[in-house]
Amino acid sequence: MILTLKTGTSRQEADKVIKKVKKLGYRPHVSRGVDVTIIGMIGERAERYRDVFEAMDAVDHISEIEKPYKLASREFHRDNSVIRIKGLEIGGPKIVVMAGPCAVESMGVTLDIARKVKAAGVSVFRGGAFKPRSSPYTFQGLGEKGLKYLSQVRKRTGLLCVSEAMAVDQVKLVGKYCDIIQIGARNVQNYDLLKEAGRQRKPVLLKRGMSTTIKELLLSAEYIMSQGNYKVMLCERGIRTFEDSTRFTLDLNAVPVLKKLSHLPVIVDPSHGIGIREYVGVMAKASVAAGADGLIIEVHPKPEEALSDGPQSLLPSQFERLMDELRKVASAVGREI
Amino acid sequence: MILTLKTGTSRQEADKVIKKVKKLGYRPHVSRGVDVTIIGMIGERAERYRDVFEAMDAVDHISEIEKPYKLASREFHRDNSVIRIKGLEIGGPKIVVMAGPCAVESMGVTLDIARKVKAAGVSVFRGGAFKPRSSPYTFQGLGEKGLKYLSQVRKRTGLLCVSEAMAVDQVKLVGKYCDIIQIGARNVQNYDLLKEAGRQRKPVLLKRGMSTTIKELLLSAEYIMSQGNYKVMLCERGIRTFEDSTRFTLDLNAVPVLKKLSHLPVIVDPSHGIGIREYVGVMAKASVAAGADGLIIEVHPKPEEALSDGPQSLLPSQFERLMDELRKVASAVGREI
Amino acid sequence: MILTLKTGTSRQEADKVIKKVKKLGYRPHVSRGVDVTIIGMIGERAERYRDVFEAMDAVDHISEIEKPYKLASREFHRDNSVIRIKGLEIGGPKIVVMAGPCAVESMGVTLDIARKVKAAGVSVFRGGAFKPRSSPYTFQGLGEKGLKYLSQVRKRTGLLCVSEAMAVDQVKLVGKYCDIIQIGARNVQNYDLLKEAGRQRKPVLLKRGMSTTIKELLLSAEYIMSQGNYKVMLCERGIRTFEDSTRFTLDLNAVPVLKKLSHLPVIVDPSHGIGIREYVGVMAKASVAAGADGLIIEVHPKPEEALSDGPQSLLPSQFERLMDELRKVASAVGREI
Amino acid sequence: MILTLKTGTSRQEADKVIKKVKKLGYRPHVSRGVDVTIIGMIGERAERYRDVFEAMDAVDHISEIEKPYKLASREFHRDNSVIRIKGLEIGGPKIVVMAGPCAVESMGVTLDIARKVKAAGVSVFRGGAFKPRSSPYTFQGLGEKGLKYLSQVRKRTGLLCVSEAMAVDQVKLVGKYCDIIQIGARNVQNYDLLKEAGRQRKPVLLKRGMSTTIKELLLSAEYIMSQGNYKVMLCERGIRTFEDSTRFTLDLNAVPVLKKLSHLPVIVDPSHGIGIREYVGVMAKASVAAGADGLIIEVHPKPEEALSDGPQSLLPSQFERLMDELRKVASAVGREI
Repeated sequence: MILTLKTGTSRQEADKVIKKVKKLGYRPHVSRGVDVTIIGMIGERAERYRDVFEAMDAVDHISEIEKPYKLASREFHRDNSVIRIKGLEIGGPKIVVMAGPCAVESMGVTLDIARKVKAAGVSVFRGGAFKPRSSPYTFQGLGEKGLKYLSQVRKRTGLLCVSEAMAVDQVKLVGKYCDIIQIGARNVQNYDLLKEAGRQRKPVLLKRGMSTTIKELLLSAEYIMSQGNYKVMLCERGIRTFEDSTRFTLDLNAVPVLKKLSHLPVIVDPSHGIGIREYVGVMAKASVAAGADGLIIEVHPKPEEALSDGPQSLLPSQFERLMDELRKVASAVGREI
Repeated sequence: MILTLKTGTSRQEADKVIKKVKKLGYRPHVSRGVDVTIIGMIGERAERYRDVFEAMDAVDHISEIEKPYKLASREFHRDNSVIRIKGLEIGGPKIVVMAGPCAVESMGVTLDIARKVKAAGVSVFRGGAFKPRSSPYTFQGLGEKGLKYLSQVRKRTGLLCVSEAMAVDQVKLVGKYCDIIQIGARNVQNYDLLKEAGRQRKPVLLKRGMSTTIKELLLSAEYIMSQGNYKVMLCERGIRTFEDSTRFTLDLNAVPVLKKLSHLPVIVDPSHGIGIREYVGVMAKASVAAGADGLIIEVHPKPEEALSDGPQSLLPSQFERLMDELRKVASAVGREI
Repeated sequence: MILTLKTGTSRQEADKVIKKVKKLGYRPHVSRGVDVTIIGMIGERAERYRDVFEAMDAVDHISEIEKPYKLASREFHRDNSVIRIKGLEIGGPKIVVMAGPCAVESMGVTLDIARKVKAAGVSVFRGGAFKPRSSPYTFQGLGEKGLKYLSQVRKRTGLLCVSEAMAVDQVKLVGKYCDIIQIGARNVQNYDLLKEAGRQRKPVLLKRGMSTTIKELLLSAEYIMSQGNYKVMLCERGIRTFEDSTRFTLDLNAVPVLKKLSHLPVIVDPSHGIGIREYVGVMAKASVAAGADGLIIEVHPKPEEALSDGPQSLLPSQFERLMDELRKVASAVGREI
Repeated sequence: MILTLKTGTSRQEADKVIKKVKKLGYRPHVSRGVDVTIIGMIGERAERYRDVFEAMDAVDHISEIEKPYKLASREFHRDNSVIRIKGLEIGGPKIVVMAGPCAVESMGVTLDIARKVKAAGVSVFRGGAFKPRSSPYTFQGLGEKGLKYLSQVRKRTGLLCVSEAMAVDQVKLVGKYCDIIQIGARNVQNYDLLKEAGRQRKPVLLKRGMSTTIKELLLSAEYIMSQGNYKVMLCERGIRTFEDSTRFTLDLNAVPVLKKLSHLPVIVDPSHGIGIREYVGVMAKASVAAGADGLIIEVHPKPEEALSDGPQSLLPSQFERLMDELRKVASAVGREI
């Protein structure tokens, strides 16, 4: 961490800052210019004390040389992390497509969609059993019954499955029935939940919050990893901006930036990211071209009867055609699906 | 809820929508124009089915006549709700000031601040025992030990106290030691936590998230109230925008809008809302003029030694002067402190 | 335009609204429900009077059935508009790549870049002669001298060229030397400038402002078209959001949405949209996959000596490789470059 | 300007940067640490070359010690600037209220409003003759005829008046008929217009754009001042955020920040800043408490007949009551109206 003192700071005041650096156990590296004094603070995790120095009047501003996240950073792990689940590799050359309904509603419909997306080439089935809804009066998901349906789907189709845990006591439950535990956008800074996910051994799909910066997303991944679970996927799903003709603004810039800063696989959710069915396919293709390691897409045979997110779900026939188109784009950027 | 069909929708397609309305148990109120057909959907909580109709091709757009929140709405309770805690009234004519350090750090410092803010006229002491920090490597709060310090402060000073619960199992714990349970900005859509707070009888201070709309904040209050706890205060604490010369953008527009839409007391947190010490006092005054029912302000005798949020904490002497200034502004808008 | 009156509006108050509709020369189409009265306002350009009705107490809200833009809308022109310039087609099956330095700096460097991008397959050369800079103390462009250099480049290389006009009196000047007149992001609502561009016959490249909605961008295009110049290209170049790890947030969602709402060609500027050299290529590929009809990319042989936007300019060798990669992505989505 | 080089930069690469600093005519002030080398660049207006250094691979990041604006900065002029117009002082202890209709519509209505706001204590009359409207089909203002009405109002009432210039050739015209030339939010980075305003001797009211940062607003003021016109007022009028229950988000944080960074008077426009009549008064009071030197408020006797911005205009009777309330708040913060 580098502390730049204010122009005109007296030697005495500067010494006060230097003394503080030492007191906290760091080695100060001081360079005094004509106008300005700069103090490097050498040692581990100096950024913990950022607040302390920001509060000192003599300090003009602070630059972090070290990144605040460690385990999630590319410096910590130079190669791409590949997460392996029963023969499937996420983060390797092959792009992984996850698909299924927003919410698990009934065994029949769920199994029907699963068979269709499997036929189209999907390897991971998505379906919500616990649904975070902004209104307490809307459908909240089937709960454990929904997870049991997913478990049936796995057995009968051989698909892997991913589902969201919204609360600490749901984490183990989702882990019991599913292969991947999803942490949703609204819970990206629910640190208790992140830590619980970090205590599991199942892979975690961590969604970016609607106003989470890239740096904060990596810090949230760090919360999971700091508990010992390194199998984390990062998921861009649209951020909140002033634009109101789409549900969210899919921030595809985040894909190459995350791939640069971190070794973790990056998944994109174009369904939430644009939120309007007829545009989902195009944005899925753009996501692949932007370098995504995977996609998560909502599919429903009767979107107008879906109890959640109908307007953004693809019909199975649309999805099937999309998979063919995605294969071409993947091949154009040197990958495959 | 009102469904406007697309220009050129055939009678047959329109009938399909009408049939759906009936099937869901609502009475359709149809008006066919030359170009456009409009369908009113009469009955309780029609907005639950918004997604269903959004997903129908014939539907152009949907207007909600009824608000999605009920218990939190001004329609449900015409007069201002006044929350009473041991003789203190929040939401009445008197503006309530809550003050204290960001985090509880030691018994000595905590008690010292408490005595100073009490002398300045404060009735509620704030202090965090559980701290949501974006990095897992920064100070996370003293936990239950911190709550015990707060409990001591209550006993020795007679101040009420408020502290944040970040996880379901912390809600009861905070309720045990404190008078008001705070739900923080990052947890504003942690529905499990909201419901747990709703099952308590202690008042709840609900902070707006950094990208939560006013409507969503009221829906989050509704989650708490739907469990039976009507003692909810709404807190504006700054939203995330493109402006980077302040920590957040304090949205004071939200104060009159919330007062209009809801009967719940509205508190403002200028410390987080601007995030820079020298501007906190001015924004506190603006908050009172904007109609806030209360303020929550960070105070620390040695901000440069605070383990969290030092840069935005006022010195006790600054805070004391501010209280005098706030009294004048309160009086100018027909209230008192 | 459809006016929904407030619940409980009296017959008398409703009649006042109806009378107003008639007075303004529109035919009211009234449907009275049990709770709510809805008034359709039939006739051309009713949205001009939106403010009038919003200000009436009885009016709860207003929905626009007709789009506020006409000439720019897909309804006005069902097929894609193809802009033809000396044999080049913009908006047709072939994707057009425009490339060159941010600013024209000297004849030598400019011609060198032009030859290199031409060799790589570019058909339109970009280069700024008038530069909008946020500080009055930074390089402001060479002015007409820069345009003369561009004119030389055209003659010697056969490339078409595009350059920005920032002021009314620059529009004709740019039109004199160049093939396409660019209106920059900061001037997207400079209506005087838009109208002047509309009075020319040269095609216009209209950049979206950093906080312009898609609807507002189309209205700005409408300003140009309403003066008789229908040759308008829309350009997405990144919007301003809370994310600060990239210069702007490239809103690729805007591409399919604009293609749906409008018949005008859509160009993407990934250089400004992400603002960091090493990510520009990836975002260019994503733009093609998202359905862009063209790209505009900054290229400079010595970015560290560029007087403007060096950090986001590609080296000619990087750009050459990128063109090969773009051809593959274009082919994967059924187009060519 | 301070250049921090990347960790591990070789001596040779560092020397290349140093050489560049010298070549541009600056004195380098180098401090080499164990891990990191820092180069201070001493001399005037080094920030012009920011792009040059950002584009160099060895440079990790750049901090500006000097502010990019000079004349607008508090460092340039320690005391508050007071703008004097015929006995009126803007920026002094007295808060100035400007009021009037959004647009000048007819002589009769305009004069009527003027007399009413004058009676309520207003000293500057506002009224638009040139109206920037997002649609080319809505009312665009009366043009010079409107300015003549304003001129009549001045003569008959003795009020000063302010009106907007949207184009270079309107600047002189507005200056001819009015006392203050307004530059609107959409033109805040129309540099040609800013320079033209800078060539006048009449005071300028510069509105912040809906996505302009505080720093950019000060740079736009610098454009005007760099031409010799130092009589600039800065105006906060709401920024664009995700919140959609108000028209804009009034950023009152900007008031104390602007007062700290600059010596120029700060005006607030609560009418546009919240955009809904019933909340305008409350936000006007909050603006005064936040330290505004002036307010600009829309007033119209028949808002439902106003051709522009009716929904946010106060009735004269509401405005009169508001003035009384504002006086109390002003007095509470040690000022008067």
